[in-house]
Amino acid sequence: MMRLTRRYRFCASHRLNSADLTEDQNRELYGKCNNPHGHGHDYAVDITVAGTVDEETGLLLRLQDLDSLIGESILREFDHRNLNQDVAEFSGLVPTSENLARVIENRLKEKWPSHFSAGSPVLEKVSLHETKRNRFELRT
Amino acid sequence: MMRLTRRYRFCASHRLNSADLTEDQNRELYGKCNNPHGHGHDYAVDITVAGTVDEETGLLLRLQDLDSLIGESILREFDHRNLNQDVAEFSGLVPTSENLARVIENRLKEKWPSHFSAGSPVLEKVSLHETKRNRFELRT
Amino acid sequence: MMRLTRRYRFCASHRLNSADLTEDQNRELYGKCNNPHGHGHDYAVDITVAGTVDEETGLLLRLQDLDSLIGESILREFDHRNLNQDVAEFSGLVPTSENLARVIENRLKEKWPSHFSAGSPVLEKVSLHETKRNRFELRT
Amino acid sequence: MMRLTRRYRFCASHRLNSADLTEDQNRELYGKCNNPHGHGHDYAVDITVAGTVDEETGLLLRLQDLDSLIGESILREFDHRNLNQDVAEFSGLVPTSENLARVIENRLKEKWPSHFSAGSPVLEKVSLHETKRNRFELRT
Amino acid sequence: MMRLTRRYRFCASHRLNSADLTEDQNRELYGKCNNPHGHGHDYAVDITVAGTVDEETGLLLRLQDLDSLIGESILREFDHRNLNQDVAEFSGLVPTSENLARVIENRLKEKWPSHFSAGSPVLEKVSLHETKRNRFELRT
Amino acid sequence: MMRLTRRYRFCASHRLNSADLTEDQNRELYGKCNNPHGHGHDYAVDITVAGTVDEETGLLLRLQDLDSLIGESILREFDHRNLNQDVAEFSGLVPTSENLARVIENRLKEKWPSHFSAGSPVLEKVSLHETKRNRFELRT
Repeated sequence: MMRLTRRYRFCASHRLNSADLTEDQNRELYGKCNNPHGHGHDYAVDITVAGTVDEETGLLLRLQDLDSLIGESILREFDHRNLNQDVAEFSGLVPTSENLARVIENRLKEKWPSHFSAGSPVLEKVSLHETKRNRFELRT
Repeated sequence: MMRLTRRYRFCASHRLNSADLTEDQNRELYGKCNNPHGHGHDYAVDITVAGTVDEETGLLLRLQDLDSLIGESILREFDHRNLNQDVAEFSGLVPTSENLARVIENRLKEKWPSHFSAGSPVLEKVSLHETKRNRFELRT
Repeated sequence: MMRLTRRYRFCASHRLNSADLTEDQNRELYGKCNNPHGHGHDYAVDITVAGTVDEETGLLLRLQDLDSLIGESILREFDHRNLNQDVAEFSGLVPTSENLARVIENRLKEKWPSHFSAGSPVLEKVSLHETKRNRFELRT
Repeated sequence: MMRLTRRYRFCASHRLNSADLTEDQNRELYGKCNNPHGHGHDYAVDITVAGTVDEETGLLLRLQDLDSLIGESILREFDHRNLNQDVAEFSGLVPTSENLARVIENRLKEKWPSHFSAGSPVLEKVSLHETKRNRFELRT
Repeated sequence: MMRLTRRYRFCASHRLNSADLTEDQNRELYGKCNNPHGHGHDYAVDITVAGTVDEETGLLLRLQDLDSLIGESILREFDHRNLNQDVAEFSGLVPTSENLARVIENRLKEKWPSHFSAGSPVLEKVSLHETKRNRFELRT
Repeated sequence: MMRLTRRYRFCASHRLNSADLTEDQNRELYGKCNNPHGHGHDYAVDITVAGTVDEETGLLLRLQDLDSLIGESILREFDHRNLNQDVAEFSGLVPTSENLARVIENRLKEKWPSHFSAGSPVLEKVSLHETKRNRFELRT
């Protein structure tokens, strides 16, 4: 079983504010992340796929195939965007890094092809780096 | 002559849009950075000071003094903020990294003390890292 | 199941010398790390916690809670210290990175709250980076 | 159970070209990696070993023992070499990173001592970083 | 005066061997870098440009213009190539990092436009990183 | 004029305490760095040399020559040592990073050969990284 982890980057802005909480509770809970006009991050997301190596080509999958999938499902809609206003899932969901990791995982599971052009690895892990100090990880 | 360079970080959102240009010109010039709802970055700024080492203490200056100055002049007002809406200088100025570096330099020059609690180094350079690939540098 | 890994840093000095070994054996076994007056490192420790995301807040836990716990249990007593002389556990234990990782894990297990202010994740992994090349890992 | 992960580096050149494919298929599949005169990388490989800590010495194993093993089995024959022409296994195998990780794992399994000079950890994982963005991982 | 430094990457293989030296002298001088079948690196090159900021746009130059220039002059011909065999200048020149930095500087000076689409910064520095430990720098 | 910057690393412990100050003044001035039993760091020092490239070999100097010089003058006596107790210069000098950079510069200037085995570059800069955030720089 071979695993490949590939890193993608996008920069986006967001504001943490829950509709279920009062203004004071939001400020208390999210602190600076609740600032009214938002702020931003350079996110990195590591996608781990697992499968068998094709003996003829020596590849687990073609990187271009993974790049197309991530590009269309994630980067095109998240990069240089405001998560609260530009990404449909966050119209009723607080864009914490935990929720952002879950949205990424859901989008990839939905679009994951049964077979790539070479190889058929499964999605194993989504690991979202919010800053250099924090990463959020989901094993699927 | 000793030089000390110390790194500070802040995350902020912004949108690039010039009032002097048409909507089409803005989109053409700034590309994704012109997206209407903005986006964000984790900025790093390297502050370089130069001076002589105090023979008694072996210090160029006390780092706490530099931290206080940068904290009050820059981080408190830029970190977890929207540059366009939360920072006064950008009400009539496009928050490109070039302009952000100049605003930081101006603020530091204005507030620079003639003497710190130990040592009197001068501000020599402001170097703003927008992403891992780009940095903008001003020698003062 | 969501996992969060957060990085903490501390700098400390130590000397490797086992009371169970002769002077020659110590020098042979630990090499430069046995130098009589000690040496030091900038350690990084990655703490991994696992649990479920609170649907109302979108958080696994509040980072401030984790920071307080690590700050009080680990950083306050290890940072800018001599491990051999300033940390109780090492009065009869060689402060190798293996033992340092175990001491950190023990302290965290002992102080781990049954419930944080938001969420109740468990401690899953302690990963101690001695240098950029070596990391020591314990899954709890 | 303690895990140690240690990083080793080597630089090498290679060319991706499969004898089972036509010239056009190779160019289409491997793209720039099929360029006739080859190209190169600075590879990093993380070796993870797992075992118990010796209570007398506080060590999982002596790093010198691991360094000797990796040095003789891998670095001496891969560093500053052309993988296609200088490494026996690649005379009939395409030197993709997937295959390179497998060759490293095979060599280490074959040469792994039943007991090191201090401790007897097992080889648990080989993780090969082709570039900063891609890593290939085998759990043994 | 504003300075922008932007990083570009390419991976290439090379072999160090001087036609002016005997086989033994080459081996003695270049060591492992003289291995007959070559080896490779992931090079990074930092390009520094200096000029004035356009007041209307807040830009020193458009990054796309710099990217096109470096892409066409350098990356297209160096990336995933064998420097000795694929780059014209090295037919009679040893591809040391010193010479590689000079070739890059020469190519950029030759192709440098008198005016970019926005701004007219000059080329100030070429800094070539051979590995994480070594960089070679030319101020033009 | 070609410049080469090469990075060296050493880990060491130290304590900041000035004989010219009272106990209280020392604690106030140096804070945690004044802790009685010391602490430690993984230092990195970047050595910059400048000169002309030899046309026959394409080299500014042979890296082995620089490595020997730094190894003997600096690393052998600083690495895995206590700066206060093991390095002669610090018997009457506080081992701040400012003073450490000056000691390194002095030692290199004293031992700098008029001619290396290939090329005769001059020492141009010593840049000492105390942590990832702070570096101290001397141009000679």
